[in-house]
Order: sequence, then structure tokens, then C-alpha cells
Amino acid sequence: MHVISMLVENHQGVLARIAGLFSGRGYNLESITVGATIDPTVSRLTLVCGGDDPVVEQIKKQLNRLIDVIKVLDLTDSPSLRRELALIKVSAKGRQRGEIFQVAEVFKAQVMDMGSDTMTLEIAGTPDKIDDFISLVLPFGVVETARSGVVAIERGKKNGKQG
Amino acid sequence: MHVISMLVENHQGVLARIAGLFSGRGYNLESITVGATIDPTVSRLTLVCGGDDPVVEQIKKQLNRLIDVIKVLDLTDSPSLRRELALIKVSAKGRQRGEIFQVAEVFKAQVMDMGSDTMTLEIAGTPDKIDDFISLVLPFGVVETARSGVVAIERGKKNGKQG
Repeated sequence: MHVISMLVENHQGVLARIAGLFSGRGYNLESITVGATIDPTVSRLTLVCGGDDPVVEQIKKQLNRLIDVIKVLDLTDSPSLRRELALIKVSAKGRQRGEIFQVAEVFKAQVMDMGSDTMTLEIAGTPDKIDDFISLVLPFGVVETARSGVVAIERGKKNGKQG
Repeated sequence: MHVISMLVENHQGVLARIAGLFSGRGYNLESITVGATIDPTVSRLTLVCGGDDPVVEQIKKQLNRLIDVIKVLDLTDSPSLRRELALIKVSAKGRQRGEIFQVAEVFKAQVMDMGSDTMTLEIAGTPDKIDDFISLVLPFGVVETARSGVVAIERGKKNGKQG
């Protein structure tokens, strides 16, 4: 699995070009997030994809050559934080609610909404942790999920200056 | 602002086609998240874009016609949860750390990493809340941010059956 973080200019078509570069190689992106930065003209993309190292190296070179791409950073092998957000709507009536609350508490998930027959939970964590949480609430009946995909950031330097 | 939630088959090229549809109309996506669902062959996309209602209506029709698109749901005017995850690396030395801890506590942000000169915080919330948090830590010096973009899910029905 490869984790690539990119800074791009907020121009139309940049996402289509990036996505097209992967699909043109027959690569499916496992997850992608595109979010704002403190510079309103720049967005950060985080891409997760499988695939062979040499092909991903080629894709990275091509990404670097794209107009509107400011920076490409491969976080695959560097110390980084990788986190994801998920909203999970679960069937919940009567005493099931209490049971779901208990699972939520252990995983530090927040109850964000309660309907007549459902509860919606929010959980932040590593993708594995979110998978585990979903496995645990699956028996109650998962109505809907919305996962953000991975956001990643390099860990801070532990000695010397911030590079 | 429009919030569109989609279910798509995990086939290569689907993201490029969706992104191309927006850029072909001259529309820039403000944020996009692509995450797994409990069906490994299906992903959920959440798109946020500006633009005129009639044009977005046309885009929605075209999205519905795309191969690999299973479902398009416009959450713009429906009761929904809209949440985002952000990792924010802030310059932090000495007594600044304590000050940043205080801001983090108020916003229920978690300290995820500490470097010699930096702290990395995680915050989940509405996009507005994350904007506010970033404004508050900006004076310390924001080294890097990674925001997921919006994930959205319909609120559960409050009476009667889950529709």
C-alpha cells in the first residue's frame, strides 16, 4: 500500500488529471481525500493505492510533471500519522441502544444522532481501528457508512530542527 | 454549497469520470472524500461544490447516467451530519506547548504527536469548527495541515420507520 500526499493549485481539472493518471495505468485508488489548506488557492490531496513500487515511482514522476501540482510527498515508508473519519448509521432499538453505547465507549466513538430505529456514530482512528469497530457493530445491522479515506501527515522531527 | 453523496462500483476510472464531469462544466470541487463501504466492491464518495442550482441539477443527472454509479443522493437541503477530520502540525516550543494544549482541550482536539519543535493535533468537527480551530492556532505557526474534506450522512428518521 502506498500513501501519497500532494499539494495542488485549486484549479479546475486538476483532480480529473490526477485520477486519470492512475486509471490510465490500470490502478484503482483505494482512498482519496481532498481538503483545504491555510492557503485558499491550494488543496492537499492524500492518495492511497496498491500496486508495484516501480509503477508507483513512475506515477509519482508523472504527478510531479502535472500543471497545478506543487509538491508530491511519498509517506509510504516515512514515519507518519494516518487517520480516517467514519460516520456509521446502525439499526438500534430498545436495549440494543445500550449495547451499542458500550461498544462506542470502548472505541471512543461519539453518538452524533439518534433516530427512532437508528443511531449514527462518529469514529476517528486508523483505518484498521475503524474496520474493527464496524465489525463489532455489524451484527446490529449497519444501515449506511460514510468514511473519509486516509488523511496523512509526517511526524515531527524528534531532535534538531524541523526540516 | 452543494453536498452530494454517491455510491459507486470500485472500478478503475470512475473517479476520473466523475471529476471530469465537474471540470468539464467549469466547476471546481471544494472537497471530495472517497472511502470504503461494508461492501468491498462499492465506495462512497462525498462531494462538496459551489455553483448554480440548475447546473448542479444537470451534473446530478449526468452522474446518474455514468457507468459504475449506483446511487446519487443530494444532501444539500436534507437533514444531515457533515463532518471533517483534520491533522494540524503547529510550531510549538517550551511554554507554547501549554497554550496549545489549552486550545486543544476547549476544541476537544487530540495531541497525536510531539516533535522537538512541533505538535500535531487531530480534530473532528464541522468544517466551520475546524476553520475556527485553525484560526486560533495560526499565531503559533501552522507548519502543515491535512484535512479530509466533508463526509456526510442523512440523519435517522425521528418517527415511523427507517426509510
